Amino acid sequence: MTKRTLLHWGAAAGCFLLASAATAQPQMPRREPTPNDTLVSPDVQSDHRVTFRIYAPKAGEVTIRGDWMEGSGSQKLDKDDKGVWSATVGPLAPDFYSYSLTVDGVKTIDPKNAMIKQGVTSLDNMFEVPGPEAAFEENQMVPHGTIRMAWYSSSTLDMQRRMHIYTPPGYESGSQRYPVLYLLHGGGDEDSGWSSIGRAGFIMDNLLAQKKARPMLVVMPNGSMPRAANAPAGAAPGGAPGGGAAAQDRFSSELLKDVIPFVEKNYRVLANRDNRAITGLSMGGGQTLRVAPTNLDKFAYIGVWSSGVSQQAQSDFEKRNAEFLGNADKTNKMVKLLWIGVGEKDPLANTSAKNLAALLDQRGIKHEFHESGGAHTWINWRHYLNDYAQLLFR
Amino acid sequence: MTKRTLLHWGAAAGCFLLASAATAQPQMPRREPTPNDTLVSPDVQSDHRVTFRIYAPKAGEVTIRGDWMEGSGSQKLDKDDKGVWSATVGPLAPDFYSYSLTVDGVKTIDPKNAMIKQGVTSLDNMFEVPGPEAAFEENQMVPHGTIRMAWYSSSTLDMQRRMHIYTPPGYESGSQRYPVLYLLHGGGDEDSGWSSIGRAGFIMDNLLAQKKARPMLVVMPNGSMPRAANAPAGAAPGGAPGGGAAAQDRFSSELLKDVIPFVEKNYRVLANRDNRAITGLSMGGGQTLRVAPTNLDKFAYIGVWSSGVSQQAQSDFEKRNAEFLGNADKTNKMVKLLWIGVGEKDPLANTSAKNLAALLDQRGIKHEFHESGGAHTWINWRHYLNDYAQLLFR
Repeated sequence: MTKRTLLHWGAAAGCFLLASAATAQPQMPRREPTPNDTLVSPDVQSDHRVTFRIYAPKAGEVTIRGDWMEGSGSQKLDKDDKGVWSATVGPLAPDFYSYSLTVDGVKTIDPKNAMIKQGVTSLDNMFEVPGPEAAFEENQMVPHGTIRMAWYSSSTLDMQRRMHIYTPPGYESGSQRYPVLYLLHGGGDEDSGWSSIGRAGFIMDNLLAQKKARPMLVVMPNGSMPRAANAPAGAAPGGAPGGGAAAQDRFSSELLKDVIPFVEKNYRVLANRDNRAITGLSMGGGQTLRVAPTNLDKFAYIGVWSSGVSQQAQSDFEKRNAEFLGNADKTNKMVKLLWIGVGEKDPLANTSAKNLAALLDQRGIKHEFHESGGAHTWINWRHYLNDYAQLLFR
Repeated sequence: MTKRTLLHWGAAAGCFLLASAATAQPQMPRREPTPNDTLVSPDVQSDHRVTFRIYAPKAGEVTIRGDWMEGSGSQKLDKDDKGVWSATVGPLAPDFYSYSLTVDGVKTIDPKNAMIKQGVTSLDNMFEVPGPEAAFEENQMVPHGTIRMAWYSSSTLDMQRRMHIYTPPGYESGSQRYPVLYLLHGGGDEDSGWSSIGRAGFIMDNLLAQKKARPMLVVMPNGSMPRAANAPAGAAPGGAPGGGAAAQDRFSSELLKDVIPFVEKNYRVLANRDNRAITGLSMGGGQTLRVAPTNLDKFAYIGVWSSGVSQQAQSDFEKRNAEFLGNADKTNKMVKLLWIGVGEKDPLANTSAKNLAALLDQRGIKHEFHESGGAHTWINWRHYLNDYAQLLFR
């Protein structure tokens, strides 16, 4: 049973029904039916092609942008004589995908798809093309952990702040302590991202059911920093999105002074470096690179996905991390895993990731470098989590 | 700090920024700026009026429907010469509100507002008008409980199923056992409703901080039943929305055989009738009336909000609940609280609620009847929870 199926429940029932003990009294708007009433979108076909439809009779142009597309393009939808725009894509490999529609220049969600990915200031739609390749991230008939939304008072940011926390099956009624993966999202996303489009809970549930990973907590903080109180007017909001140094340092403080102490006070975790991993994608990869190398007393496992160190930033990175880079013996003893992953079609990140790997090679710092297909998308990050989580805390 | 404020972070940054260690490299689409780029919606003013805006230069009609409106009407937006449609409403009493836009007949969300309420097949936008009247439901600087999303295998429905569970501050690191409120949503919603637009976690946090309620778990199952396997083609999806008897009985089984056993196996709860309350709104009120009176060995507290028993359904209700209605002394001894709430402008529910109250009066069954202002909206249900939770488990 996937969320996709859920969306078909009552899809034709746009009317409001009032429930009483045994009667349901509809209050339907009285109007002529339109093609919108029965329209299905997205329509995932058995051959893995997917049709998107939107009723917009007065629109002049409708386009779709999805994360299965490479590069920065979009695809136009075609209008029929009833005002329904449609486009068919694929076949797509079984996986989860995100997309958005743009109607006459305004980005919008698909009005027929309630399965969404929440960002800081934006929403995108999601859907699944089911199949064996997606089994690792599907909601399978296996024991499930739980995902919490936990609010806490951030001393760094002087505000109420939220994190998502995955606890493995058995946590709720048990007494065991567990290691912790701190898992960071990218620019524009917030702490729900890894649990919605990132499928982190299902990926962990499935690995644990197959005994391919050690049971662990996965803590997913909100890495999008609010604008600093002393930021100049008109400045880009610090860290949301983007990886400016000041925003990264605020995140480091948030992580070390607020997130980790909150987790270690309230949850049954193993509170030592051998049982802490830190890993992030894109902006979160930059945050990981900012905080981990100078805090090896706190983290033994490091993951940097779709991120790295650009040539322009290398000199600053080397200065900040002189001890990490300069004492390879010590670093290699302390860092049990440094896992870099990037898609071959992710040009900027690919350059930065390879530049980081070259720098580590040059300094004799052990690491794994994984170049996958694809670009700067959650398609890659879910697969990286599935591979990487199996290597942690061994 | 409210979610509303979160939405302003990076509102102008629709571009994609790639984060590396110390550089952020924008990949902005090259195009002419449009009014959409800097548009703010909703724009909550200090006088509690709210302006909604959407850029839709080619649209012929844009309307808004919000839950502050009474009756089934909607309001038209006006178009300016740049293609921006807008409408101002209010002043509105400080509270949380939901709304949706309809552009040329297609319901859509506000593209500038990422704060949403998730339904089974639909999304609506939310916003807050801040002020003292909304303090009870705001994210205050008080200790917070956590809200879990817990998946379980439902034997009734033969599928993976999710519930939301609020645990009070202190639960995570404590050893105490707590009473449980089973809190049901209405037709079209799912298990996230009480935690998003219902604000249940914040309402409980604020009550607990003021010692106005006893610490309790609040379990929020998914009451929207999937279509039964043997349902005739074209039948309305059972229970989502609506309150058909078959769907109600499936929910009763789901609750008694799956939800409650799961909670009592995995959480530190007091597993007896004196420490179980069941309460629902609209469809959930119908579900409550279906399951509670015939299971007084399991529930001591009952809440029925914006629901009741219609005159047409009364004879069936009396037959099913002959013992509950016929033995007032026993019922009054067992039911510690039967709390009925309904809005005076909620015509169908108001009739059913008053009919239920009259029946209970006639049979000598003690109850409280609370008629509030307003209609069939979350505005009322949040206030009912705030009032009702203070009376539980005393």
